[in-house]
Amino acid sequence: MDYYSSQISKLIEELSRLPGIGAKSAGRLAFHMINMPKEQVEQLASTMVQARSQVRYCRECCTLTDEELCPICASTERDHKTIMVVENPRDLGAYEKTGKYNGVYHVLHGAISPMLGIGPGDIRLKELMERLQRDVEEVIIATNSSLEGETTAMYISKLIKPTGIKVSRIASGVPVGGDLEYIDEVTLLRALEGRTEL
Amino acid sequence: MDYYSSQISKLIEELSRLPGIGAKSAGRLAFHMINMPKEQVEQLASTMVQARSQVRYCRECCTLTDEELCPICASTERDHKTIMVVENPRDLGAYEKTGKYNGVYHVLHGAISPMLGIGPGDIRLKELMERLQRDVEEVIIATNSSLEGETTAMYISKLIKPTGIKVSRIASGVPVGGDLEYIDEVTLLRALEGRTEL
Repeated sequence: MDYYSSQISKLIEELSRLPGIGAKSAGRLAFHMINMPKEQVEQLASTMVQARSQVRYCRECCTLTDEELCPICASTERDHKTIMVVENPRDLGAYEKTGKYNGVYHVLHGAISPMLGIGPGDIRLKELMERLQRDVEEVIIATNSSLEGETTAMYISKLIKPTGIKVSRIASGVPVGGDLEYIDEVTLLRALEGRTEL
Repeated sequence: MDYYSSQISKLIEELSRLPGIGAKSAGRLAFHMINMPKEQVEQLASTMVQARSQVRYCRECCTLTDEELCPICASTERDHKTIMVVENPRDLGAYEKTGKYNGVYHVLHGAISPMLGIGPGDIRLKELMERLQRDVEEVIIATNSSLEGETTAMYISKLIKPTGIKVSRIASGVPVGGDLEYIDEVTLLRALEGRTEL
C-alpha cells in the first residue's frame, strides 16, 4: 500500500486486523475516519481505550461489565433462581433482545473443544458450580448448536445432574421462517426428534 | 442495550456509526477490542487520532496524505504528463493495485450530483484546471460508472476540450469473468457500443 501515505497505510493495516474487516472495509473505514470531525475520532479512540481498561468480569455471572456487578445481576426484578448458560456476552445480548427472558445468565467465555485444546478448566465453569451452592432452581444451557457447544452442554449437564437442580437445553430445530428445502439434514433430524405434540 | 454495562454500550454505539458496521458487527468488534491486549487498543486509538490530525490534501493531486506531496506525486518515476481523474482516494488505490498505471492522479473528492446539490464548485475541479496550465498530455477520466460519475465525466471533458489536451474515459462494459446472463441491460448495451475490432 505504498501508494497511500504512511499514516493512512498504518491505519488501514491496523483496522484490517480486526475481525470481519477485510482490506477493502479497512480502507473505507480509514478514509471515513480521516474525514470525520476531529473530536469524533478522538471520542471514539478514548471510548475504546476506556472500555478496554475499565471493563472486567461480573462478580456473579462473569459477563464483561464496568461495574462490580453487571446490570442484570444487579437487578432486583430478575429471577435469580434461573440461570441461562451462554458461551459469550454477545449470546447474552441475543437473548436479552428477545425481551422475554427474565432469569439471569452465566457466561462461560468459550466452549469445551478438544480440537483446540480447550478443556473444562479453561472456561468459567468453576464459577458456575459455585453459584449453584446458593438457591438455584433451573440451569438452562444455551451454548451454541455446534460440536463444541453440544459437548459443553453434555459436560455441564452431567456435572449438575447429581446436585438435583433442573438442567435444560434450548431446543434445536428449523429456524422460524426457515425453508425446509434449504435446511441441512442434521437440523432436520433434530427438528424431528424434538417434535412436540399439538 | 441496557443489558450491557454503560462503557460497552457506548463503545458499541459509537462503532455502529461507522460505515458498513451494523449493530451486530459493532458488538463483535467491541467485544474483540475489550479482549485485545491493552497496548494494541491504545496503539489503534492513537493511530486513528494521529491519522485524523496529520492527514491533509496533497498539494498536487488533492489525495489524502500526511506529507506536502503524496508518494505518487513525489515520485520521479511516474509520468506526470498523464493525469487520471478519480472520485476518491480509494479509487486511486484500486488503480494502483493493478500495478500497470504509471501516470499520476487527480482526486475530485466527490462527483457532480444535482440530486444531492453537489455542483462543480464542490469538488476539486479548480485544482485540476490549474494543473492543466502546466505540461499535460492526457487526462483520463475514471469517475465511477454511475449517473453522477458520468455527469462529472461529461462536464470535465467539455471543460478540457477547448485547451486541446487529450481527454479520454475508461471503458465501460462486461467485467472480466462476468456472466452475460447476470449483467444488467445498460451494461450490455455499453459493451456493445464500445466493441473493438479483433
